[in-house]
Amino acid sequence: MVSSSQLANAIRALAMDAVQQANSGHPGAPMGMADMAAALWTRHLKHNPSNPQWFDRDRFVLSNGHASMLLYAVLHLSGYDLPVAELKNFRQLHSKTPGHPEFGYTAGVETTTGPLGQGITNAVGFALAEKLMAAEFNRDGHAIVDHHTYAFLGDGCLMEGISHEAAALASAWKLNKLVALYDDNGISIDGPVSPWFVDDTPARFRAYGWNVIGPVDGHDAEAIAAALTSAKTSATAPTLIVCKTAIGKGSPNRAGTAKAHGEPLGAAEIELTRAALEWTSVPFDIPADIQAAWDAKEAGAKAEAEWQKRFDAYTAAHPALAAEFTRRMKGELPKHFAQTAVDAAVAAHTKAETVASRKASQIALEAFTAALPELLGGSADLTGSNLTNTSSTPPLRIDETGAVVLGNTAAGLPVIGRHINYGVREFGMAAIMNGVALHGGYIPYGGTFLTFSDYSRNAIRMAALMKQRVIHVFTHDSIGLGEDGPTHQSVEHAASLRLIPNLDVWRPADTAETTVAWAVSLENTTRPSALLLSRQNLPYLPKRDLGDISRGAYVLSEPSDVGIKKKAQAVIVATGSEVHLAIKAQEILARAKIAVRVVSVPSTTVFDRQDVAYKKSVLPAGIPRVAIEAGVTDGWWKYGCDAVIGLDRYGESAPANVLFPLFGFTAENLADTVRKVLSQKSR
Amino acid sequence: MVSSSQLANAIRALAMDAVQQANSGHPGAPMGMADMAAALWTRHLKHNPSNPQWFDRDRFVLSNGHASMLLYAVLHLSGYDLPVAELKNFRQLHSKTPGHPEFGYTAGVETTTGPLGQGITNAVGFALAEKLMAAEFNRDGHAIVDHHTYAFLGDGCLMEGISHEAAALASAWKLNKLVALYDDNGISIDGPVSPWFVDDTPARFRAYGWNVIGPVDGHDAEAIAAALTSAKTSATAPTLIVCKTAIGKGSPNRAGTAKAHGEPLGAAEIELTRAALEWTSVPFDIPADIQAAWDAKEAGAKAEAEWQKRFDAYTAAHPALAAEFTRRMKGELPKHFAQTAVDAAVAAHTKAETVASRKASQIALEAFTAALPELLGGSADLTGSNLTNTSSTPPLRIDETGAVVLGNTAAGLPVIGRHINYGVREFGMAAIMNGVALHGGYIPYGGTFLTFSDYSRNAIRMAALMKQRVIHVFTHDSIGLGEDGPTHQSVEHAASLRLIPNLDVWRPADTAETTVAWAVSLENTTRPSALLLSRQNLPYLPKRDLGDISRGAYVLSEPSDVGIKKKAQAVIVATGSEVHLAIKAQEILARAKIAVRVVSVPSTTVFDRQDVAYKKSVLPAGIPRVAIEAGVTDGWWKYGCDAVIGLDRYGESAPANVLFPLFGFTAENLADTVRKVLSQKSR
Repeated sequence: MVSSSQLANAIRALAMDAVQQANSGHPGAPMGMADMAAALWTRHLKHNPSNPQWFDRDRFVLSNGHASMLLYAVLHLSGYDLPVAELKNFRQLHSKTPGHPEFGYTAGVETTTGPLGQGITNAVGFALAEKLMAAEFNRDGHAIVDHHTYAFLGDGCLMEGISHEAAALASAWKLNKLVALYDDNGISIDGPVSPWFVDDTPARFRAYGWNVIGPVDGHDAEAIAAALTSAKTSATAPTLIVCKTAIGKGSPNRAGTAKAHGEPLGAAEIELTRAALEWTSVPFDIPADIQAAWDAKEAGAKAEAEWQKRFDAYTAAHPALAAEFTRRMKGELPKHFAQTAVDAAVAAHTKAETVASRKASQIALEAFTAALPELLGGSADLTGSNLTNTSSTPPLRIDETGAVVLGNTAAGLPVIGRHINYGVREFGMAAIMNGVALHGGYIPYGGTFLTFSDYSRNAIRMAALMKQRVIHVFTHDSIGLGEDGPTHQSVEHAASLRLIPNLDVWRPADTAETTVAWAVSLENTTRPSALLLSRQNLPYLPKRDLGDISRGAYVLSEPSDVGIKKKAQAVIVATGSEVHLAIKAQEILARAKIAVRVVSVPSTTVFDRQDVAYKKSVLPAGIPRVAIEAGVTDGWWKYGCDAVIGLDRYGESAPANVLFPLFGFTAENLADTVRKVLSQKSR
Repeated sequence: MVSSSQLANAIRALAMDAVQQANSGHPGAPMGMADMAAALWTRHLKHNPSNPQWFDRDRFVLSNGHASMLLYAVLHLSGYDLPVAELKNFRQLHSKTPGHPEFGYTAGVETTTGPLGQGITNAVGFALAEKLMAAEFNRDGHAIVDHHTYAFLGDGCLMEGISHEAAALASAWKLNKLVALYDDNGISIDGPVSPWFVDDTPARFRAYGWNVIGPVDGHDAEAIAAALTSAKTSATAPTLIVCKTAIGKGSPNRAGTAKAHGEPLGAAEIELTRAALEWTSVPFDIPADIQAAWDAKEAGAKAEAEWQKRFDAYTAAHPALAAEFTRRMKGELPKHFAQTAVDAAVAAHTKAETVASRKASQIALEAFTAALPELLGGSADLTGSNLTNTSSTPPLRIDETGAVVLGNTAAGLPVIGRHINYGVREFGMAAIMNGVALHGGYIPYGGTFLTFSDYSRNAIRMAALMKQRVIHVFTHDSIGLGEDGPTHQSVEHAASLRLIPNLDVWRPADTAETTVAWAVSLENTTRPSALLLSRQNLPYLPKRDLGDISRGAYVLSEPSDVGIKKKAQAVIVATGSEVHLAIKAQEILARAKIAVRVVSVPSTTVFDRQDVAYKKSVLPAGIPRVAIEAGVTDGWWKYGCDAVIGLDRYGESAPANVLFPLFGFTAENLADTVRKVLSQKSR
């Protein structure tokens, strides 16, 4: 009979050996949490190593991602497609065992973790998605959505501010199927934490309304397993299990010290640890009985088969729902969406309304939220400003029993609250949206002011790194915000978001561009998008057709459109609220017989992916280019501009119509700049 | 006799009238907190309206900065230089009453607030600086540093994650002279907060170890004043006073509703409010008796005079300390610092060591922390990685009585712990540093990994907006971080920090450049700086002299330095860890008789401020330019580059020496790129 300690020691041995082999990594946390992992993974976790995509598996999040070898060890031991060769290749190029767990690299890794505090927040998103999918799709006698979300987290995650936002929302939403296990080892990188971490964490979580269990002995698998059993009975509250552990447990000289955290134990200490653990196998070798005790393939296949049977019964009873469920979990848009998108763009074009682009966004969302029940919106306490809600997205509300408050559509589908009041928690919102997207079933979007994208920036980056379809609605996108002043006025944010690899950034100029930006963002399954929208009204810009908006930049107006028969002598490149100034400048210059093309650039990131021929057709070689955008100028020089009108300083508190001319954002100044560039070129 | 309510109603009247006049702003919070403000400002706050710079004044922070009219009202009423004309000009261009309180615009505004949660965190920095200055400078019988820090904050601040980081550190540091008043009105922008804010905030703060008072009736000035009296007796714990209020108090139809938050009441409701408050004065007019009751000029002058007498006695008893105190509070570096800086740079040049630039930073800090007792370092739990500590900066420790643990220098000056373990709290660290800098007496610096500048980004921006000397040490600045992988590898961060107006960004290439970067950052009193430093070793780069490093970019090597007598045919522009590749490429090209100049650019932001002549001397017109930096390429095109070698994607988890060649960061690839550019140009 294999003991719980032996199960845990298998993790310890693999972790210390892999870190030693890589001569890099973190042995302390995997060794400290080994008993917690053994208790959860061998006694509670519902999963099928042979099908890591099984929908109704429990989700496991390693929020303290530097403990990656713990996760790789349990995946390997449980029977996932992670052979020992990969463990031996820990932290090497293109291995399945990168330094921190990376979603998409390794079967069984549910989310990328490492930036502390975000994993537990992703887990809140997973648990929220599970709860909402259950509310939408389960029917009497058919509980097809019924899984837990487990997260491991450490002192570092709990010090991070985002842990506060995550914990508060988990409680507000009564996510009783979220179970967090706190690796309470009293050590962080700088040493024993008492001088800088004096929180009474159990009391803090009780203050949020969580069910707090423990402290339990984090090296007593029985105690942990019992705590997990108890956690699963929580009716309305998420659970925190406080596990008292020793970092580097098993290492005679390093256990309980900060030195165990981030460096290999060294050959000598590993030998001592082997002896202390009575672990006699050679590195990377697991005794057959221990391997067998870990192997979850058979139990996992059985669990999935049992679920499949239930899902088949559900399909028989509710065929339409089952089909919809399957589509939603695949992340496929309904077939009719392409037409919906075209119709919405054409409607915008036909109506040609003068509205703020945040309002244009709400108009587009009105159509798209009606067409896509998977759209799960929200705002960080700025709903009325971000305009992220629509008539088909009532606010999410949870009743006292923990149930999602439901309405009904005419078609008989229950409607959950699909617009989330995240509170003033931008970072939490972004990381929760990442968890929702990773779980599947929903396309999350959420709003705040563009300036506060600073607060959520690393979570936006994580979505881009993980290739997740998460849509950020950032309104009040410039000095156009006006009186709230420089603390709230974005200056560098558009340029700075464009630097995040694999993030699409849109700054549309009118209703049609905004609608297309939404459609492209929704159709884009491999990256997040950010929509930068104005507070102030923007005139509709007449255009011949809508086709090229989706290419990120297009010729909005040619000299011939303003009665000039010459070929363009210069190109004005503009985005968002400055495009109409470009059109006016074109008219001013036309009166002086200067022929100008206006290129609208709703998305530089999308345009940068177009083929060279298209790029050249929009920005022909040899013609001077002048860019205008109400923000920092740095990013525009790569387009070979001869001049850029922008704002390389902070704004001021004053009405928007005072600020634009103050900082040179006028058609006259733009026209003068074009003239100046032309005269320099002709010299 | 003027009643407390009348004092508060003066605030209410000014707030609703100014917002109405501007047709923009937030009346609800000022009206709701008016009684709190009256109790604090007329009964407790130690301040002198005639000298807002008086060192020993209490600091007041309005963390919910949208309530700016509350602050403007009490400043005006108390007798600060804020005439009624400025109140009438609320939120207009170049007024002293911008939409949110802006440090430097308005006498008596201690910090810029608006981005929620940061004000209370600044307040922690104020209180920390007070405590440390007291520990350093007070002597028996001479308590020259003895003031409180008061903060108002609302639900929004408490939802933000940073409030968790701030509260935890305030408790760890036993900041008993910090008193926060919570405007507990149960309303945020999206409405009554109960669906998204279920925290038991008093219990949460008790879990941190705070002294929690209340809830008290936030409209009962007596109760608030009594709570403040009690708060001042707290021996070791910071205090939270929970004040139950109604937002928009006084407005018959808007009070207690979200509608009171962010829009003018309107003329009709203002009339009703005037009637309800029995406020008969015309807009902006304050009855003489109420004005007199508010006037704090006489009491303030008396308080300062009393302190000045004590300071004179201190000066007589401890003349050297008094002089040092005065220098420190002025923010002036000691006269010898210029020489210290030169010596340190020359020493680096002479030793020509091959070390990581993070180590070079520590070497520079070793000299500078010895020379500057005002340097107050720290790290967000990465001390051993950031190398922010030195032999003269022991860790900050607080004993059980709340006293700062002291040592002694040979010179007899007590030494406080000058290196702060901030824990894993990057955003909190940054905003606390802002508060420390604003308080005066210290130059704060703090470290984390460059990637996690994302977490603190908005606080970095706030330091730049407020023109505060705060120095960020961002180590592990690229894929050179290696095995920790893409979650930890900065790609876009150097470029993205350079976009923040008024922030200096340094990415030095060797020990001399790092030393100069530190010196310039310390001498720069009107902006924050960020030092981007390598994890990996960098060779020393021979140079003729050190003079031009401080200009941000300089000619490091001419063709003649590698034996080529021609004038340069191309310029290679490089930063940080890539400069030595440029030198090697120069040598490779020299062997093919291609003459190349190497320009090292430790700081683009500093270089951008140089005069045109210097810029042209470094980057002469008409010669092709190739840039290389291990990060996104966008920012380099503004220098007229013909090619940029960079990384417009995420990195990988692998050793650094595998990653650099993988992504093209080799001298050979750089040399080939120069050849290619030259051949294109010659076509």
